[in-house]
Amino acid sequence: MNGSFIAIDWGTTNRRCYRIEDGRVTHTERDELGVLAVPLNGFQNELARLRRRHGELPVLGVGMIGSKRGWQETPYVGVPASLLDLARAAVWVEPRMTALTPGVSLLTSDGADVMRGEEVQFLGAVAAGLAPPGSRLCQPGTHCKWASMEGDRLVNFTTAMTGELYNLLRQHSLLAEVLVGAVACDSAFNAGVEEGARKTLLTSLFAARAAWLLNTRPAADGASYVSGLLIGSDVHPQLQAGSDEIYVLGEPGLGKLYVKAIQVLGGRAHLVDSGSAFIAGVNRLWGCMT
Amino acid sequence: MNGSFIAIDWGTTNRRCYRIEDGRVTHTERDELGVLAVPLNGFQNELARLRRRHGELPVLGVGMIGSKRGWQETPYVGVPASLLDLARAAVWVEPRMTALTPGVSLLTSDGADVMRGEEVQFLGAVAAGLAPPGSRLCQPGTHCKWASMEGDRLVNFTTAMTGELYNLLRQHSLLAEVLVGAVACDSAFNAGVEEGARKTLLTSLFAARAAWLLNTRPAADGASYVSGLLIGSDVHPQLQAGSDEIYVLGEPGLGKLYVKAIQVLGGRAHLVDSGSAFIAGVNRLWGCMT
Repeated sequence: MNGSFIAIDWGTTNRRCYRIEDGRVTHTERDELGVLAVPLNGFQNELARLRRRHGELPVLGVGMIGSKRGWQETPYVGVPASLLDLARAAVWVEPRMTALTPGVSLLTSDGADVMRGEEVQFLGAVAAGLAPPGSRLCQPGTHCKWASMEGDRLVNFTTAMTGELYNLLRQHSLLAEVLVGAVACDSAFNAGVEEGARKTLLTSLFAARAAWLLNTRPAADGASYVSGLLIGSDVHPQLQAGSDEIYVLGEPGLGKLYVKAIQVLGGRAHLVDSGSAFIAGVNRLWGCMT
Repeated sequence: MNGSFIAIDWGTTNRRCYRIEDGRVTHTERDELGVLAVPLNGFQNELARLRRRHGELPVLGVGMIGSKRGWQETPYVGVPASLLDLARAAVWVEPRMTALTPGVSLLTSDGADVMRGEEVQFLGAVAAGLAPPGSRLCQPGTHCKWASMEGDRLVNFTTAMTGELYNLLRQHSLLAEVLVGAVACDSAFNAGVEEGARKTLLTSLFAARAAWLLNTRPAADGASYVSGLLIGSDVHPQLQAGSDEIYVLGEPGLGKLYVKAIQVLGGRAHLVDSGSAFIAGVNRLWGCMT
């Protein structure tokens, strides 16, 4: 069992655990026990519970478990960052038993940015050949990350609050009554993408409400259209800023919306399985650390 | 008392009442009894209470009291719209005693927009000479309205969800801990305005959080900076779209932030007292209606 470990992609609101034996995933579980659902100082107990299910294996924790709100804050590694850089900066919070990976930060005269977790998938995707060296990648979600590689190193990235803003609008805003349906990858979504690329978000969002009040768009199209507005407003400046060929890492549902939006705005998009990218990343990290 | 009436600027969350006698305001009150705080079917009782305080005068209700959520939905008048058009479309919900003004709508191939209440202030400002005929005006708030006049008619407008988005971020988002202080018209605000004009909002908002995590901006500057981001992102496309000379109708606090943002981005701004604009508007409406 020397090559066996448990890798955890521990986000703010979700968690994915993988038991990995000699490089292969032999068990997977996913739940909603993100770091916010674990009491401070509760992570050691939580890992004990996991080990009762999966065996007394060492654990590699990735993502928000290494944040101020997680088990222990790990340092950020500045860009450019490779998997080897991440492995070297990992923190063993229990000797030989539990390690947490660092986050990645960007600090330039133009601004600041951070990520915790996505870096393993970006670097893993390139290491495994799921995306070519030097490519541009995107990982949609609550905070959508856009990354640029040079060779197999992560050299630049930007975060957009796209998913968080959609949830805020759906739960708490005057647009809530417009956003009652499901989001589909349909013509209303495409129209929203084009409008989102063309207009400033503050006004296009209100226009979506006005269209609802004036009955100029079918009510069932509201959620798809507004999702398109937000994703179009996210994708458009990224296609302007560099190569228009993007490797999208994500859940199939949200991933397909981004692929579609990139295509609608004239770019080329490839959907990459984010789980495979994560496994490739943690296997290589673990190899450098043990 | 033939020329006397009570004018109410009845918004979603606030209300301002003015007793007007022969064109002059003789009493003013302001409270938080917006339409959402009044039960459906409760508006008649609420007006009875007001009349006990101010006398058995006729009432002119402006704003959200004429919406679906108010006493009765009044029609929208399409642009171009004059004060006379509004007076003609007003609805007497109690004969000779209570009238509600219409809202204004915009429907073009480029999109839809609506307003309820701001039109009286825009048209009143021009009618009273507080802003010149043909000017561009802006009314900041939960939903910031940008209006263009041709002569003394309202011909075009756009709404930005600026204030609502700021409140959503402050109350419900991951940026809440960045937005704890007060907003000041200071250098952090100016820096936010410039960044908001230059970058897309979805990414600049997350960068504000990253700067907070990495301690690259004083924590006390967070609220001013993010307010600047939002207002800069609102103002910039408007200055690109037409004349850069803007008449800002608003509360002194928020009004001054918009004036400053317009100046930072190279425009010319004039602060107009929105109360005076409203009084000018309702006096002229009342003259056409009685």
